[in-house]
This record gives sequence, structure tokens and C-alpha cells, in this order.
Amino acid sequence: MPPSEATTTEPVWRLTDSCLRAGEATMIVEEPLEIVVDGSPYAVVMRTPGDDVAFAAGFCLAEGLIDAAGELGSIDTARDLGSIQACEVENRNQVSVTRVGERASKRSPRSAVPHTISTSCGLCGREMIDDIVQRLPDIPQGPSISLAELFAFGRRLQEAQQYFRPTGATHAAGIFDAECELLAFAEDIGRHNALDKAIGKLLVADRLAEASVAVLSGRCSFEMAQKAARAAIPVVASVSAPTELAVELARRVNLTLVGFLRDDSLTVYVEGGRIADLQ
Amino acid sequence: MPPSEATTTEPVWRLTDSCLRAGEATMIVEEPLEIVVDGSPYAVVMRTPGDDVAFAAGFCLAEGLIDAAGELGSIDTARDLGSIQACEVENRNQVSVTRVGERASKRSPRSAVPHTISTSCGLCGREMIDDIVQRLPDIPQGPSISLAELFAFGRRLQEAQQYFRPTGATHAAGIFDAECELLAFAEDIGRHNALDKAIGKLLVADRLAEASVAVLSGRCSFEMAQKAARAAIPVVASVSAPTELAVELARRVNLTLVGFLRDDSLTVYVEGGRIADLQ
Repeated sequence: MPPSEATTTEPVWRLTDSCLRAGEATMIVEEPLEIVVDGSPYAVVMRTPGDDVAFAAGFCLAEGLIDAAGELGSIDTARDLGSIQACEVENRNQVSVTRVGERASKRSPRSAVPHTISTSCGLCGREMIDDIVQRLPDIPQGPSISLAELFAFGRRLQEAQQYFRPTGATHAAGIFDAECELLAFAEDIGRHNALDKAIGKLLVADRLAEASVAVLSGRCSFEMAQKAARAAIPVVASVSAPTELAVELARRVNLTLVGFLRDDSLTVYVEGGRIADLQ
Repeated sequence: MPPSEATTTEPVWRLTDSCLRAGEATMIVEEPLEIVVDGSPYAVVMRTPGDDVAFAAGFCLAEGLIDAAGELGSIDTARDLGSIQACEVENRNQVSVTRVGERASKRSPRSAVPHTISTSCGLCGREMIDDIVQRLPDIPQGPSISLAELFAFGRRLQEAQQYFRPTGATHAAGIFDAECELLAFAEDIGRHNALDKAIGKLLVADRLAEASVAVLSGRCSFEMAQKAARAAIPVVASVSAPTELAVELARRVNLTLVGFLRDDSLTVYVEGGRIADLQ
């Protein structure tokens, strides 16, 4: 693997075959990233450095700070501009998003995803879904995919993973079009970040409309399903388990939800009229 | 497995051995929990219902809202009191923490763990550690543990896991004393929550001083190492990988950090003078 800002090595002791040996471990890098929106600090997220502009774009979409690429004015980061001096932001672990359009003029950004619960949103998952559904885009009815294609997506995700084998610490997200082409891919210490980065890459390139299938290396919790729904990606397939609330959201907004996507087995939680073998 | 509010079942389609069959899946429940501190909404966390009082206590310790059990006045939740009517809080997905002592009188709780970065805390992991270290308790120098004991901790954690096998979606955290007794255990959809719950159980029982080893089913990220440090638990062993920043924090505050704790292999990232076989 080429050297990368995403990994580092550390001396360790390894016990294998009842024998303790000094060695070296490749480790994933984790750094805080401050996301500033319209000049106000919005959140600090622990992430693996890299793809910070895409991450900020995907994060803003997931949080409901924007609904489409057109609302993104600029995204500035010293890291991506390659020069700290030349950049508006002071630190390589800060990314500054400026929105355009109606919401940009509002005083300070507030999360659509309740970090503190608003009066309109209740305190159970169902009410949370009611609240979120109002702000979701239309999910496309298609595509029609086969079980064989689902296995191909899973294999393709595995092939794209660069950091998992050496570090054992990363999650991956891949987004495919209806022709099984990998449109965007990201790895990160956090599975939420990996999906935000992959979605953000397409958002920044204004190609999100081509996205048909999101494949996740980790569990599909409510927030993961919500990110896919916010990006109007109709099929979500996870190598691991979904939660009950993720399934409920998928059913409600008609996302196709597949779990335990392994080499030759899978589980379909919500079919959504898109899996050809089940029609 | 007995019925539980933590799991539910859903009809699914399973493809195994090239054959598609209708079946049923046991799924982990995920619900939002609003944590109110001194009357103000502080955070909403997605979690598996159960152990909410312990969760709130552990969460407050991890966030630096309290430093010790003595600062916890009351923790109220409708769920744990068994009656929504009789309770001060309105919803089973809300938990209300009232602090006593000096900090309780301050206006509104602010996180010691930067959600938005303060001026004192910079924007890189090292500066974040500098900032956090000032607020950490002293980590005990002991205990002395053997590699054989570490494997025993790992087996004991596996035995205690009730929800992982049926759902494939939970993380677990177990806290042991120096005699390898399992003092507290929790499972949750989130690995952060599982550790907060296990630590919170000991905090509420005022037995945190007995905690020697935290064993985690998932990756040990910076925040996981930080939670152990905030609870002054000197040894952290994870079934999975730590991140580089977790190792850096462990080295800085002298936590013993073990990763990839499997049936007969493990990796020691930070020894901390506590692993007898390495002295």
C-alpha cells in the first residue's frame, strides 16, 4: 500500500501461535474536523483525513442544511487547497461551507436531524421518521436489480477497500449506478463519514441523480438509511445488519434494504419492488 | 432468547445455498434518547432502549459534565420508573439528569468534549488530547495482568453477549476488576453507548474505583479510549483495532491498550507497565 495521510505505523507486541513478538502495526489516522456553515461552527466530527470537501458536502445534505448541490456556494479547506497561507480557513482540520439561496441568509444553521429534539419531532423513532419524511426528496421507483448484481456490488466494494486489510479499522461506502458502475467510493474510521464522503463526491460533481445503489461495509442504522434517503438513493445494501428503525424508515419511504450481503448469501428486509428475482 | 424490548422480529427473504426463502429476522431496536441536563436539552443519541439511567450517568461522565458519582443528584426516566404518569419526565425516550455541587448552578451545560471547538482546544488530535488531559482523573498504576487473563476477559465478554448472535447488530462492553470478575456489562446498537452504559452502571453504584479492565467488542477509537480514561479504567482491550489517535491518548495518559483480542492472538499497542508477561 502506498504511504498515505490516512495511515501511520506504530511499534507493537503481537501474540500469535503462543509466541510474543515485537512488530509494527499499520493504523488508521483519526483527526477532528470542524465543519463551519455560513461562518458559524456547526459540528466537530472525528474522521480519517482526506476527501474533506466531499465529506462536508455529504454531511450538509444528510443534516438537511442543504437539499441539493445548487445550494452549495463554496467549500473551503486548507487541506484541499494545498496551502494553509492561501486559504480562508486557518487549519487543515477545518472545512468551511458557504450556502447560497434562501437558507443561506438565515441567522445560524440548525440541524434538520434533531440533535436536540424540536417540538414538532416527538421522542420515539416513529415520530422522528414522521418528522424526517417531510423533508425527504422523492425516491426513484427504479432501478430493477438482480440478486446476482447485488453480489457483484458487494465484491466490487471489497475490491475497492484499500485501508481495511492493513488497519482493520475502516468502514467503506460505495455508490453504484444502475449499470453496476462504481460512481463514488470512500473509506473512513466512521461508517457515517464514509457514506457522507461517497455521497458528497457525487453531490459536488452534480451526479447524485445517477446514484442507484449504496453499498455499506458496516451496519445500517437509522442514520445510515436516512443519509441514503436524503440523497434519494433507492437501494441500500449492507454487509452487516440493519436496525429495526432503519427497516421502518426504508419501508416508509420505499428504500430497498438488503443486509448481511456476503459472498453467496444475503437477507432482503425491504424489497421495494426493485429486486427482479422477487417479482 | 427471551422476548425483550431490545429486539423485535421482521419478515425477510433470505438467499442461502442459492435458494431464496421467506423467513423471519430478529432485529435490534434503535430509538432516540434525549438527555436533559439540569433542565436543558443536551443531546439526542440513538440507542438500544434499556439501562437508560446508567447510560445517562456514563454519558455525563464521558462528556465531562460530571467528574464523579457525587455530582449526580437525580436521574429520572419514565422507562425506569415504570410509569409515565408518575414521572417527572414526559417520555420513555427522555432521561433527565440533575447535578449537584458547583457545576449544577451554572447556567447551561457545555460539553468538555468539544462538539464545537473551543479557543483553548486546537484543531488537531494532539491539541485535543492536550485539552482533554487537563480534565482527566489520575489513572491507577496497576493492575498487573497476564496475557492469559486478557484472553479470559475476551471469552467472558463473548459469553455475556445476548443480542449479537440473534441480531448481528450490537456492540458490547464489559468492565472487570483486577480479579477478573465481570463488574458491569452492556450491549447496544452503538459501541459508544455500550461503554457509557457499562461505566454508568458502576458510577451509579459508586463502584467505579473497582474497575480495572474495559473490554470492547468493537474498534477503539479516540472517543472510546477517552471514555475509559475519564472513568480512570487503566486497561482497555478491544476485539478490533484501535485508531492512531486512541493509541496516542493511551500513551499520553498511560492507559494499557490491547487490540485484536481474539481466541488465541492479540496485539499490545501500549503496555503501560501492566502486562506481567512483558515485564
